[in-house]
Formats: sequence, C-alpha cells, structure tokens
Amino acid sequence: MTNSATIAAIATPAGSGGIGIIKISGKDALTIAASVFRKSCGRTPNSEPRTPNVFESHRLYHGYVVNPENGRVLDEILLAVMVAPYSYTREDVVEIHAHSGPAVLTAILNLVLKHGARLADPGEFTKRAYLSGRIDLTQAEAVIDIINAKTEKSLDIATAQIRGNIKAHIESVRDSLFHILAETEAAIDFPEDVEETIDTDSAVEVIQNQVVDKLNKLIKQYENAHFLRDGLKVLIAGRPNVGKSSLMNCLLRKDRAIVTPIPGTTRDFIEETLNIRGIPVTITDTAGLHETDDPVEILGIKKAYEYIEDADLILFMTDLSQPLTPDDHEIYEKISHKNFILVANKADLVEEKFEPDIPDAWKLPISPELRKPEIIKTSVRYDRGVDALRDLIAAVSMGGYDDKNTIIPNLRHKLALERGLQAASSAASGIQNGTPFELISMDIQESLDSLGEILGITIREDILDQIFSRFCIGK
Amino acid sequence: MTNSATIAAIATPAGSGGIGIIKISGKDALTIAASVFRKSCGRTPNSEPRTPNVFESHRLYHGYVVNPENGRVLDEILLAVMVAPYSYTREDVVEIHAHSGPAVLTAILNLVLKHGARLADPGEFTKRAYLSGRIDLTQAEAVIDIINAKTEKSLDIATAQIRGNIKAHIESVRDSLFHILAETEAAIDFPEDVEETIDTDSAVEVIQNQVVDKLNKLIKQYENAHFLRDGLKVLIAGRPNVGKSSLMNCLLRKDRAIVTPIPGTTRDFIEETLNIRGIPVTITDTAGLHETDDPVEILGIKKAYEYIEDADLILFMTDLSQPLTPDDHEIYEKISHKNFILVANKADLVEEKFEPDIPDAWKLPISPELRKPEIIKTSVRYDRGVDALRDLIAAVSMGGYDDKNTIIPNLRHKLALERGLQAASSAASGIQNGTPFELISMDIQESLDSLGEILGITIREDILDQIFSRFCIGK
Repeated sequence: MTNSATIAAIATPAGSGGIGIIKISGKDALTIAASVFRKSCGRTPNSEPRTPNVFESHRLYHGYVVNPENGRVLDEILLAVMVAPYSYTREDVVEIHAHSGPAVLTAILNLVLKHGARLADPGEFTKRAYLSGRIDLTQAEAVIDIINAKTEKSLDIATAQIRGNIKAHIESVRDSLFHILAETEAAIDFPEDVEETIDTDSAVEVIQNQVVDKLNKLIKQYENAHFLRDGLKVLIAGRPNVGKSSLMNCLLRKDRAIVTPIPGTTRDFIEETLNIRGIPVTITDTAGLHETDDPVEILGIKKAYEYIEDADLILFMTDLSQPLTPDDHEIYEKISHKNFILVANKADLVEEKFEPDIPDAWKLPISPELRKPEIIKTSVRYDRGVDALRDLIAAVSMGGYDDKNTIIPNLRHKLALERGLQAASSAASGIQNGTPFELISMDIQESLDSLGEILGITIREDILDQIFSRFCIGK
Repeated sequence: MTNSATIAAIATPAGSGGIGIIKISGKDALTIAASVFRKSCGRTPNSEPRTPNVFESHRLYHGYVVNPENGRVLDEILLAVMVAPYSYTREDVVEIHAHSGPAVLTAILNLVLKHGARLADPGEFTKRAYLSGRIDLTQAEAVIDIINAKTEKSLDIATAQIRGNIKAHIESVRDSLFHILAETEAAIDFPEDVEETIDTDSAVEVIQNQVVDKLNKLIKQYENAHFLRDGLKVLIAGRPNVGKSSLMNCLLRKDRAIVTPIPGTTRDFIEETLNIRGIPVTITDTAGLHETDDPVEILGIKKAYEYIEDADLILFMTDLSQPLTPDDHEIYEKISHKNFILVANKADLVEEKFEPDIPDAWKLPISPELRKPEIIKTSVRYDRGVDALRDLIAAVSMGGYDDKNTIIPNLRHKLALERGLQAASSAASGIQNGTPFELISMDIQESLDSLGEILGITIREDILDQIFSRFCIGK
C-alpha cells in the first residue's frame, strides 16, 4: 500500500497559459519543496532555505523556485502544501503554481526530479488515492469521466460517481450477500441446526429483491444511458441525393460545440461529435446506399452496412417528393433491426399536408426490444424540421433514462454486474432446489467477488493497470 | 485605478488534464465563491453555503462547486483564496482548482459569470497587477516572456526581468535625471543665483556617466542579446547541391526541441525553431542560389535575398570538393554585409588536411560593425563538424552578451531608451553650450518621460492596450 517513491509531474494541460502546476506527492515532497523554494523577501528570493516542517497544510506560500546549486531563479510561484493524510493521495502533496510555458515548466520539473522525485506514471496520483483507500475504483474512474465529459449531462454522471453513488449501491448489495453468506456458512458448519440458521424462503427473497433486482436495474441503466458517457452513435443512411450531407451540415452549423475528434475513431466516413440537447452525439454521414457496379462505391457501401451494426440510432433519410425506390426498400431491410428515425426530406417540394407513402410495416418495430420507429418530415435545405429532429433524437435516446437516477455504470461495471447477477441467481435457484450449501456458498462468494471488482476490492493487477493507463500524466 | 468589475477566466491552458483553474479577481470574488462553493462533509457537499468572510487568505479549501439554484454538483475542487492586497492583482482573488476537461471548466466558468463576474480580457489580471502598482510595466511584460520562453536562457532573462532588474536600472537613471532637473529648475527660478544652484561641469558629468553611458549600455545589450528572447534568425544560403537541406535535417535531428512554429512567420521556405546551446534559433533553408532563367526559381531566389537582410547570421555553404564557382562569388557579394559563417561542406570527399581555397577578402569583415567571418569544414553526410558548427553559432551570437548581465531590454524598451538617450545628450550639450535652462529642463523632462514609458509611469492608453493584448486570456 505504501509507495516509497515520491512522484512528480506537470498536472495542467500542455501549452502556454496563465498558470501551470507541477505536482509532487510522497514522503519527500516537503523536503524537495523546501530545497527548491525560497520565500519572497520584497521582490527578491530570500536566501535562506526553509526547513520542511515549517510548511502548514492547506496553505499557499508566495515565493520563487530557485536552483540551490547556482542560485538561478526559475520562476515566481505560489506553493500549495497539503500535508498527509489530508491530500488527494493521502501522502504529503506539494503543488508548484508557476507560469505555464514549455521552458519554465520543464525547467522546474527537471529540478524537482533532480532533487529526488521520479516522473509519475499516467494516473499514478489517482492510483495512489485509490490504493490509500481514499477513493474506490469507481470514483477513480469518475475522475477520467469528468476530464473527458463533453456535455453537462455527461458531467452530471461523472460527478455523481465521484461522490460515490455507484459505490454506495454496490456496497448495499454486497451487504445483503454477506448476510446470506454468513447464514449459508453457519448451515454448513452446523448441518444439524440448518432450520434454525437459515430460512431458505427468506434467503431466496432477499437475493431476489436485494441483489438480483438491484443488479438488473443497474445493468438496464447502463443499457439505457451509457451513451451519456460514451456518446450516442448516430448514423445517417439513405440512397444518394436525399440530403444526407446537407442534414449533417445543418446539424453541425448550430451544434458544433465539440471540436475534439474522438481518438481512434475510424475516418472512413465524415464523422463529427456534437452536443444535441446535452447528449454527446457522434454522427456519421455514410456513402449513398444504392445498387452499383463501381467497385470503389461497393466497398463504401459495404463499410456503411458495417457501421449500421455499430450505431445506436439510424437516421433513415428518404425523399418525400418521390415515390420510394427499390434502393429505399433495400436500405429498410438492412436497418430495420435497429432503432431508427425515418427522416422524410425535401418537404419544401411537396404540399404542406402531404404525407410520406410508406409501408405500414415500416411504422412498427420488427422486434419487441426496439422502439416504435418515429417519422418526421424535414426540409433540410430551408432548415425546417431539423430542430424537431434534434428533439426527437434526444427523446428517442433518453427514453429509457431516469433523469433522477444518475447512476450509470460503465462497460467494465456492467460486465462485472452481469457476472455477479448470474452467480447470485444461481445461488437463489440452488437454495430453492436444495443444492448443497457448499455450492451455494461458492456462488455467493463469486457474486461478492464480481461486485468487489467494481469497487476495486478484488481485482487483478493487470486490470488495474489497464484502468489507470487511460489517465493522462499528472492526474 | 480601481476597477469595479469582478473578472473571471480559465487560467490554465485549454485541454484535458489533471488540474484546471478558474481564476476570479475583484471585490465580489469572495461573495461569488461563497455562492457556488460547498465545503465537503464526508464525501458529499455540505448543504450550508458559507459566508464570504469565513475565507482566510492563502488557504486551500476542499469541497464542491454546486449550482445553488438546483443543487447540481459540477465538480470536486480545491478553492484557493487570496484576500486583498496579498494577491496577484491586489484585489480579492479566488482560484477554483477543478479537473481540466472542456465541459467541466466551461460549466464552472459559466456559473461564476452568472453569479456576477464578467469574462476577463486577455492579460487583464496582469493589467490589474500593473494598475494597482504591484508590478511595473517591465515586470508585466516579463510574465509574457516567461510563458513564451523556449529555452532556459530565454527564461533566465524573463525571470530576472520579473524580479525588477530593468525597473531598478531605469529608476536609478531617472533619479539622476530628477536631481539635474531640480538644479535646472532652481536655476530658472533664481537666475541671479545660478552659480550657486547648478555646477554645470558636474551636471554634464552626471548626465554623461549616470545617464548617457548607462542608457548606451542597455541599448547595446539589446542589440547583443535580444535574440535570447526573440530568437536568433539563421539562414542557410548556398548554391544548389552543396548540402543545405542535409545540414538543416542534421541540425534538426538532434535539436528539434521546440516544435511550436512561431505564429505569423512566413512559410515560403522551410523554417524550424530549435534550441542550440540554450539559444532559441529559427533556421531557414532557402532555395539554392544560382544563375537561372526559370521564372519560378528566380522568384524563390529573390525571396531568399530578402531573407538575408532579415537574418542575424548566415550559414554560407560551399562545396569543399570543388573550386568556387561564379555562383559562390555572387552569393558572397549578397551576404558579405552580414555576419556569416562559411561552412565548407563535403569534407568527406577530400583529404583531411585539405583547406578551402577561398579569397583572402572573404576572411575579413567588410565593415567594422561585423565580426570576422568564421570558416568551418563539415561533412554533413557523416555528421562531422556539425557539433562544432553548433558551438560556433552559439559563440558567434553570444559574442557580445555578458552572461552575468541578464538585463535584456525588449524592442519597446530599446526605442524608448533611444529617445531618452537623445534627449539626455541634447540636455548635456545644451548645458555645455549655455543654452537657456528652460530648454534644458524640457530636454531632461522628455528624457524622464521616455524612460517613464518603459516602467509604465508615463504611457499612452493605446500602447498599454497593445502590450496587454499580447497576453492570453486568464493571465
């Protein structure tokens, strides 16, 4: 648990700016700070070094970073001191608040490293906060989510998580499981007193209500709302010349709030991230889908069909001014197993009351897991109906989301929840079927372990490393 | 002097990272902080708002930013409080240390703006530090220089300046001028007692020693060393195929420490900024210079000759394995009025002792202001002599620089110094020539004003605006 090395890193984003921070954490943090810091004395650094023990916790000191070897002044700074255990890592933490420029921050960091710190790994400060028990693993993950949040809704989820709401839920489920586990183990130890040690009906009821139902609800909440964290993948599909690119541009014109492309996303098609009613939406404009012999086009269309599988929502565009074509029908066949909104475009070319002539089958979901398809008339050319389309995208995607419940597990949580759920269900049916308590106990233990992984109580080192490698250096 | 508005801005560079800071300065800073900050109470925000007067200066408070209207938690933060006058601006200053992500910083900034702050202009925090008298204008300018510093040497100059070394020098010169001014004015007021009020010989001596010589020295120091702040412009010139691009690549391979291109520099030629022995060097590889009829090439060569005028140092490359050509002689004619290093390349193609056969005239400076040209043999292909060339570039450019004297005026200072010098010289010769004291007094006053501009004592509002517009928002 205790890390011997004192670590340091630049904690602010790279670039020129007002303030840049070098963060130091570990048992030598105060000693290192004392070596390189000189309090100001008028407008010049005081020549006397300070002793580490003069620093008070949660105090700011104005002064200079000075290289003690040659008296070279690197910058005028504020020093922030947080003495263990009242810090992010629960170790002694010192922050050097300097100006943010490439030479000055590098020079100060190098000086700090020379005085006994080593460069921090990505996420190492947060990892220490987790290892010291100050935060659990879901709270550590929330730090990344806050940094990456692209809309206020994503931010809400992350701030709820950093305050421990997932942790609280999982702990309550685990408490119930511990209770059943204790009864089960008593039944194993005192087989003659089984009737007195465990009420099997009540145990099954507890598992069902306090574990299975709650875990199901959390998994459902992931499915309904994980796009608020991860982004909603929307695909524009349609045959050529129905107005796909124009729709894309029209959506971007108003909502191009997010300019950072998502790293690692493929760029086969034009893809933009925007903020639609608080939802981070990644929208992809595909090739026009139609019958063709052109080998390059065929490749593009094949790719578009692959994208369909990956999308959360399809905007299926048709031309309201023309009858449906075989291409439209072909596209419907390819997308009908997904949630979609039918966007009947070019409404400016027809009378206002004109309704799209589409097959009745298209108006119904082809499977019970799907939403009823929505149909909307637009004239992208004149920006008519596009605002209503925004509302519809938000309504369709937020349909399953409970606004009061900001507990949204991430994919890692969801997979562990599913394993925990399966083991708990198996325990419940085991109790009902008179399975030996030894096996039931193993199921409950497995469920506990799976849920413990979420909090980081029972987790493999390599998974831990993977989680913290997503962090930037300096966090 | 006092600004009624409370200002706020994101003070850290844009981007994702560990820590992002929103800075608030002004009389409402504490009230605004009290409205949106909730101290932590376990892992949840305390519901009680704080009153502004509970904040102690130079303290860090752990807690949350909460929108008081809806109780929405925006982030877990540290609040840093600096109560007037013990702050950067000498106003009440509050810093909100949040996570650095686009949504979270924007959300917090918007909340702060909604509670009564307005968005700060670029450099406005530093401008307030200057207007409040905490720092003079040279120290304000040093803030920019620290942020923009690309090498440790540039940083040294900036940190010396932020500690007030230019200010101290200018103030001492102004003190001497004030002394002479007082004597002069006494001589005007009591013309009958001139002999008693002013010793003209001594006055001339003071102006010469305490003003003229000192200002000359500062101007010289600008000329000798301003490249340490602004960068040294080095141009590679030579006829085609002498190895210009290879030299460029060879220099870059080791020294490409600075990747930020200088904004606004023309890109007609390949231009890179690198760090040579601590000197920020902008190196430009020109078109091969030779006789040609190709109109496009002629244009390029014309541009290259324009670049020569602008350069601080020319690397004039020749081919050691061949006799000099008429093109080489033509190039010499174009560059001989500048400082240059003759780089005799392709040393690998000749015997080790082979010396370049160049005219004796090339080995001497054509005018007394120039340095004696240096000659160096290289084999860029085998990276031979390139390290020695680096040393030579550093030695040539640092030749006039006094390492112990880190007072390097910037161009604005230099122009004011020249005006101050001219007026002071005019006063001195006026005293010698028996010019009426009224006119001498005007000269001295003009010299004082020019020097006062450097410190920002006497300066026009538009020049001030121009200086602070170079800052980023949040500084």
